[in-house]
Amino acid sequence: MESLDAILSDVIEHIRPGNAERAAVKALTESIIEELNTRAASMGINAHAISVGSTARDTWLSGEADIDIFIMFPADTPEHELKTEGLLLAKSVSSSYEERYASHPYIHAHFRYGGMEYGVDLVPCFAVKDATSLKSAVDRTPFHNEYVRERLPGLEDEVRLLKQFLRCLGIYGSEQRRKGFSGYLCELLILKYRSFIALLRHAANWRYGERIDIEGHGQYSGDDPLIVIDPVDPSRNVAAAVSPYSFCRLIDAAREFLARPARSFFMPKEAKPLSESEFHRILRDRGTYFIIIRFEAPDVVDDILFPQLRKAEASIRRLIERNDFVVYRSDVTVDGGSALLVFELLVWQLPCIKKHLGPPVTLRRHAERFKAMHSPPFLIEDCRYVVEVKRSYTDVKSLLKNELRSCNLGRHLSKVVQAGYEVLEPEELRITPGISSFLRNYFGNS
Amino acid sequence: MESLDAILSDVIEHIRPGNAERAAVKALTESIIEELNTRAASMGINAHAISVGSTARDTWLSGEADIDIFIMFPADTPEHELKTEGLLLAKSVSSSYEERYASHPYIHAHFRYGGMEYGVDLVPCFAVKDATSLKSAVDRTPFHNEYVRERLPGLEDEVRLLKQFLRCLGIYGSEQRRKGFSGYLCELLILKYRSFIALLRHAANWRYGERIDIEGHGQYSGDDPLIVIDPVDPSRNVAAAVSPYSFCRLIDAAREFLARPARSFFMPKEAKPLSESEFHRILRDRGTYFIIIRFEAPDVVDDILFPQLRKAEASIRRLIERNDFVVYRSDVTVDGGSALLVFELLVWQLPCIKKHLGPPVTLRRHAERFKAMHSPPFLIEDCRYVVEVKRSYTDVKSLLKNELRSCNLGRHLSKVVQAGYEVLEPEELRITPGISSFLRNYFGNS
Repeated sequence: MESLDAILSDVIEHIRPGNAERAAVKALTESIIEELNTRAASMGINAHAISVGSTARDTWLSGEADIDIFIMFPADTPEHELKTEGLLLAKSVSSSYEERYASHPYIHAHFRYGGMEYGVDLVPCFAVKDATSLKSAVDRTPFHNEYVRERLPGLEDEVRLLKQFLRCLGIYGSEQRRKGFSGYLCELLILKYRSFIALLRHAANWRYGERIDIEGHGQYSGDDPLIVIDPVDPSRNVAAAVSPYSFCRLIDAAREFLARPARSFFMPKEAKPLSESEFHRILRDRGTYFIIIRFEAPDVVDDILFPQLRKAEASIRRLIERNDFVVYRSDVTVDGGSALLVFELLVWQLPCIKKHLGPPVTLRRHAERFKAMHSPPFLIEDCRYVVEVKRSYTDVKSLLKNELRSCNLGRHLSKVVQAGYEVLEPEELRITPGISSFLRNYFGNS
Repeated sequence: MESLDAILSDVIEHIRPGNAERAAVKALTESIIEELNTRAASMGINAHAISVGSTARDTWLSGEADIDIFIMFPADTPEHELKTEGLLLAKSVSSSYEERYASHPYIHAHFRYGGMEYGVDLVPCFAVKDATSLKSAVDRTPFHNEYVRERLPGLEDEVRLLKQFLRCLGIYGSEQRRKGFSGYLCELLILKYRSFIALLRHAANWRYGERIDIEGHGQYSGDDPLIVIDPVDPSRNVAAAVSPYSFCRLIDAAREFLARPARSFFMPKEAKPLSESEFHRILRDRGTYFIIIRFEAPDVVDDILFPQLRKAEASIRRLIERNDFVVYRSDVTVDGGSALLVFELLVWQLPCIKKHLGPPVTLRRHAERFKAMHSPPFLIEDCRYVVEVKRSYTDVKSLLKNELRSCNLGRHLSKVVQAGYEVLEPEELRITPGISSFLRNYFGNS
């Protein structure tokens, strides 16, 4: 077995940006900031730009530089002014861009530099006095930046190892689609444990509700699997987005890597495409029934779409189970403008009768009402009346075709589902590359 | 609607024994007692006979006389002597009889009298000083007899109405097969409420655990649906054998009869025989799967056999459900030397994969042991490891064919099942008259 140190040094060589990349990112960032500040002055806008995020903290992965530039307005700037002037200023320096909106509008621009293209976020924010007096959700970022820049130097490569490790596990990033570990969270974990390996050694023994409070000032309590108190805001859990799955995935991988260290943990898995015939063979071997609900994905960002898809998945699962069918597993994905919810079933057809449970025989009033409403024979089981009635749906496909709109699907999905949806069996599903890799992952990447 | 009084008077005319029957029973009983006492004297046996039960209390239903005669030995008689001499004496007066054994040996004899045949139980017992100092379970009976004879006169027809009512509901008799209301219990209920109708009015409002304590001396507590303290033994529940089903059945029928009184409540239901083709049509309409386990009924009395069959039914149900099949209903019966357990299923076939749930990811020691014992892929669901494994049985018939002997079947059934059993589908089942009426009843007599 290769030594741990040898593996890690070798991985670092691959993921640490080279001098040329580093120089290019630095030069591009500085030129955009200078341009922004110059324009602000000439346009009479009271604002200045600063560099934040992984490029500012030297923790980005080679080839993955995303430049974040915040445009700071005085805290007493009226909100509409910040919005108008901030976007105006950002657009004035960008030739190719799109306007985006998280909790807050910003510009995502594309810059070419030294033959490479870089994505640059230009985000207006308020220069508030401290991170607990926010005027907008993004105002905290400059404080994060300052906190990390002061303390991290010397540990940047440890952060890179952690980010790459999580990326290969599919749990890097706090977006709703992934519910993993954000870049800032990675930095804090390294600040706490001082090295990637020390973090893994601790993570291997984490318990649900693990609490990390570097500044010892936490005022947060919640049922999250991982709680990392924000050093700049005692009431905030930086790991709030980490799902139970992501939490467990890291614990499991930490143990595996420590037990059998290998370079492969840092190499992105290239999912073999799953061919149509392989898909059908897998289904035949499993003997389960696959059913796919497909509709047009509503035009909202992933962070809004995915929570709604997960809620819809749970709601449809309950619909299926309320009708006595048995779901084995389910999952959701988005592929080329379509949202797909897949359900794998152990029981998808049922006899046409079912028991309808009535009140306890001893509750006379309820008993009499029940008997007036139903036809004999009245069976008695466990001291309750039972009648046999016709089941509304004897197969899951017709249930979904007819009752999907009765599910609680959330605002955006309800609208698109009202407009139309399809209920597909596997042979009706076209296996695109996106669906192929989704299915490969669903079946356990085996 | 015919008046309640008219219906009841008319029913009483039919179920009250006529003068001839009454005279015959009286004469036969007296002659047997006299013969027993004479023989005892001549054989030098210190014992005397008395008449007990419904014929002694004038509460039997016309045409249903079962004569009970107890042979009383002094309480200090050694048990083996009571047994030997009691049976010897009983046999000496009987020409046609069989030896039976409840908790205690006795003789069931057949006597012809006035062109009719009567069943007569001749039961040796100890003449203990009171009903709480029993030497055998039957010693209580003479005290019951005395208690009822002193108090019941004038209410005999009310008892008859109750017995006939319960008989037509299929819940008269405390045997294990039926788990209904014994004759003595009927008498006590009438002693308490003074009339059949008053009893029904109360029963219509009974709650689970209903307690009746005529002498107000009860020292019994238990989870039975109905508790009727024995007037001659404060620690005994006379209604201990009444199942929750029988209890609820009476409550339900009481309400129905009071709401719509009719003669039909007192007429035994002649179950229309269920033909083979009708059976198959019903199954087709229900869409369920019927499977029948048949084996030779062990040679024990019903009161031992039926509890074992019920226990086996529950045990097999658990076996089926542990394997993820879904039982809809089940029942047991005995027909011509065969015991039958029928299971009606909603789910009787399943895909070949199933989830095998592992430990929580956070329990490191357990997690490592689990991963060493199973093969990847390891899924993580709700913070636990999950692996997909092959299901042992994908259909319920092969499950039952292979695993029945692993069930807890009780002593007597285990032995016969070890010797052999059949697992039958409906078309393999020969519909005898007994099975026909069992099935008719199972399907709700509709």
